[in-house]
Amino acid sequence: MLTWNRYGKSRVRLVKVNRSKPQHELIDLTIDVKLEGAFEKVYTDGDNAPCLPTDTMKNTVYALARQMPIDHVEQFALRLAEYFSKKPGVSKVTVTASEQPWARLAPHAFAQAGAEQWTCVATRAGGATDLVCGVANLVLLKTTDSAFAGFPRDEYTTLPETRDRILATAMTASWKYRPQTTDFAVRSRIRSALVDTFAAHQSESVQHTLNAMGEAAIAAAADITEITLTLPNRHHLLVDLKPFGLDNPNEVFVATDQPFGLIEATLRRSPR
Amino acid sequence: MLTWNRYGKSRVRLVKVNRSKPQHELIDLTIDVKLEGAFEKVYTDGDNAPCLPTDTMKNTVYALARQMPIDHVEQFALRLAEYFSKKPGVSKVTVTASEQPWARLAPHAFAQAGAEQWTCVATRAGGATDLVCGVANLVLLKTTDSAFAGFPRDEYTTLPETRDRILATAMTASWKYRPQTTDFAVRSRIRSALVDTFAAHQSESVQHTLNAMGEAAIAAAADITEITLTLPNRHHLLVDLKPFGLDNPNEVFVATDQPFGLIEATLRRSPR
Amino acid sequence: MLTWNRYGKSRVRLVKVNRSKPQHELIDLTIDVKLEGAFEKVYTDGDNAPCLPTDTMKNTVYALARQMPIDHVEQFALRLAEYFSKKPGVSKVTVTASEQPWARLAPHAFAQAGAEQWTCVATRAGGATDLVCGVANLVLLKTTDSAFAGFPRDEYTTLPETRDRILATAMTASWKYRPQTTDFAVRSRIRSALVDTFAAHQSESVQHTLNAMGEAAIAAAADITEITLTLPNRHHLLVDLKPFGLDNPNEVFVATDQPFGLIEATLRRSPR
Amino acid sequence: MLTWNRYGKSRVRLVKVNRSKPQHELIDLTIDVKLEGAFEKVYTDGDNAPCLPTDTMKNTVYALARQMPIDHVEQFALRLAEYFSKKPGVSKVTVTASEQPWARLAPHAFAQAGAEQWTCVATRAGGATDLVCGVANLVLLKTTDSAFAGFPRDEYTTLPETRDRILATAMTASWKYRPQTTDFAVRSRIRSALVDTFAAHQSESVQHTLNAMGEAAIAAAADITEITLTLPNRHHLLVDLKPFGLDNPNEVFVATDQPFGLIEATLRRSPR
Repeated sequence: MLTWNRYGKSRVRLVKVNRSKPQHELIDLTIDVKLEGAFEKVYTDGDNAPCLPTDTMKNTVYALARQMPIDHVEQFALRLAEYFSKKPGVSKVTVTASEQPWARLAPHAFAQAGAEQWTCVATRAGGATDLVCGVANLVLLKTTDSAFAGFPRDEYTTLPETRDRILATAMTASWKYRPQTTDFAVRSRIRSALVDTFAAHQSESVQHTLNAMGEAAIAAAADITEITLTLPNRHHLLVDLKPFGLDNPNEVFVATDQPFGLIEATLRRSPR
Repeated sequence: MLTWNRYGKSRVRLVKVNRSKPQHELIDLTIDVKLEGAFEKVYTDGDNAPCLPTDTMKNTVYALARQMPIDHVEQFALRLAEYFSKKPGVSKVTVTASEQPWARLAPHAFAQAGAEQWTCVATRAGGATDLVCGVANLVLLKTTDSAFAGFPRDEYTTLPETRDRILATAMTASWKYRPQTTDFAVRSRIRSALVDTFAAHQSESVQHTLNAMGEAAIAAAADITEITLTLPNRHHLLVDLKPFGLDNPNEVFVATDQPFGLIEATLRRSPR
Repeated sequence: MLTWNRYGKSRVRLVKVNRSKPQHELIDLTIDVKLEGAFEKVYTDGDNAPCLPTDTMKNTVYALARQMPIDHVEQFALRLAEYFSKKPGVSKVTVTASEQPWARLAPHAFAQAGAEQWTCVATRAGGATDLVCGVANLVLLKTTDSAFAGFPRDEYTTLPETRDRILATAMTASWKYRPQTTDFAVRSRIRSALVDTFAAHQSESVQHTLNAMGEAAIAAAADITEITLTLPNRHHLLVDLKPFGLDNPNEVFVATDQPFGLIEATLRRSPR
Repeated sequence: MLTWNRYGKSRVRLVKVNRSKPQHELIDLTIDVKLEGAFEKVYTDGDNAPCLPTDTMKNTVYALARQMPIDHVEQFALRLAEYFSKKPGVSKVTVTASEQPWARLAPHAFAQAGAEQWTCVATRAGGATDLVCGVANLVLLKTTDSAFAGFPRDEYTTLPETRDRILATAMTASWKYRPQTTDFAVRSRIRSALVDTFAAHQSESVQHTLNAMGEAAIAAAADITEITLTLPNRHHLLVDLKPFGLDNPNEVFVATDQPFGLIEATLRRSPR
């Protein structure tokens, strides 16, 4: 005897950019929708007539996000709850939304300092010591000044070219200190050079921005001889809203975690 | 001065089903592709002419998976390494593949017992004790006998109907014991009833299968009075290979982890 | 034929408090030590004569941390590498240290805003909507003004009383809004009240501080009717350095993640 | 106004070995204890007189585990609930226990196949391909035939010698195939050689067992030229029950996850 049931969609990832002012606004939400109501025969008879697909719930989140401003997560959760409460058979809606806060770096760039770690590897062998230090997992995002075009196309290429996309990464940098370095406060100067360059760069690719960041780091600190940067490309995909009669002028994105691009390189200080 | 660089795509999730024999075969891979070569000007000049997109690498994984049998992960890793080594500018390819093993339950059903936990909540208040026990995170997958059709369509519905899809879940079940129950070895009988029903059921939806599993569990153990099942729907999406001139007869899938459907219900033993 | 070997201790968790100035300084490190050298017969003959135990490496980290100031993670990594390089048989030492940065809240209190999420649950049923919002996973730590004494002792109690300990938690708060609330910017005022109270409170227990935090939140925002706080007690254990002839005046701690205390309560606004 | 409160200890890790029969039995539990009752003044007045420490709850779990047989997690959860319900002020106890199942390998050895992955790295450069494959995260545990003694002691050594301890690890192995290898089904033979050797070896150290495992793998498969093994030492610490007037004859352990020892080595096939 079925005594209670609930169903819905979980972890719908939504990133919305408000580009209406010189300073872009960013809201980053993860949303769960759950419905209760007259759905018993879906369970007992395999009759899907009352069963709004959870895929439709996901689509609805993106379509409604396009159609209303979202200043606070609360407004959007209330709107979704109201919307789904009017669907046939629904007696109770639970919308759970969590917002990932981002700190502003620049008018079009943001950081999540949360998982950031400062790293250090000291290796001692044969009387000599190598010291390689860095910053790991500093999450950065820019809402414009990032392109990817002019790439070669083969039989398996479907990616459209773009002159304006979101660029997001979780930066890991590690640099090698000259022997006898003692001024380790330089870490914060290197970190600033990396972050500021990410924010300001006119990016043709992750590779292009990586190179600029590495050059800036080497210029910022005479004590480092080389730097390795590892930049995953945390893809933010523009949601196709045309099936719903809506445009999407670079506003509504789905943040994905896999697969991801991974770009790595080492830059060394040039001998004079 | 750029001294080393590498780029590629990470965590391409591939599930391939071989339906050519009465017993389906399943291979579940996570693949990283990394290229080294003559890519410096991508970094230094923002010139993407040599830069095969990582999105194309992902597409290639799925297209090649369609075109060759994969009996062992090693064969496929070798094939990918050979394929990418012929791309312009490439001097070194590294393909890292990891295979998730699945244990066979039935000709078309599989389990990953890995993260399975056996759970128990004993609550004592006012001299009485409630005992709710269960199984958590038992991962199950069936390659056929699962449909989802006949559902309502609204303005935001794009999901096609299907009579044959992969159904995968990480089952959590918890059941309530009658007071004074002492035979806890019944857990394995309940677990078998749940798993066998999952494997054998002609599923019209996750809800439909959940109900059948719950009924089987209650029938299997007189000591339990109710059971709650929580079944996330771990979507396996059929890859669209038409852009590459290939069909995809329910063989090549991308396994996704978010968003996911979430189906929950409680069944109680009917009074006689 | 053994061609390479390395061994060591990983994830040694060290928190050191410098109490020498009115503003306490905090350094939070996770350290791995790895040794290479003349250890073959440990592997091939089961002869442990050359094998400095990894448990000793862990002890050494804490003992050296007591004996030197640590202003930068780099200094300590270099010191450890030098120390272990002098042990018999060692030809190469690799010390990997990562520092978790903390932001200062007050002279003796710190925060990790990293994993912080802003949460919201909107529930709609019978034409009415409930709105419960909050902050999750805000990590807070204070280096003083926290006691735990005067508790009952039974046959299984071994915990010593303390008037001065580290108090650390990952706060989750959720509060209920009055119907028709529209000013959701109040979230930041509630958050500040919670954080400031944590920092300033003379704590007799996690429970005691939780209650003060809840009262402050309710006082800060007329629109909230109740608040639930969940405070795990992330134990920081004072390391016993007496076996090494060293005292430990509340300076060197091991941060643990399990088991942990878990303190929860709900406070409701009193009717006038 | 405080309207609800609850407190307790979470994630108490308990491993108990029953050595009374030729086949050892192993039970691996993670336990949360939560109490509700007359604890208001702990919150409101900072008065800890009614507040049984959560540290005592943890001690109680280990002490009771020593004093009763645990055949099923349910029995132990019920016993804990009953025990804590008699403590002063308690009106409700919630004990949540989850059991990690282990599969038997041998009379004194067990495996968790759960997180196991099969790995493969194909690297192609200069027309040649390297193929390095393996098994990752295969969790193994043996309840006897493991010693660690005869090691050097320095000023920071406190570890006692032992001739009988639990040895647990999450094995990662990767082996290199000869060029032109095509029989990849050999993986299962290598895996068996590794696992069987772990189970049967009279271990003087993790290093000693690692070497035996590597030798067995190389002997099992002519197509592999070298193997690298990485064995974290997942320490299981014997709980000191003397403060409670109890002995602990290698029966009750706390499973820890950090810090951990890490032992790595490469073995190469000897030229004939």
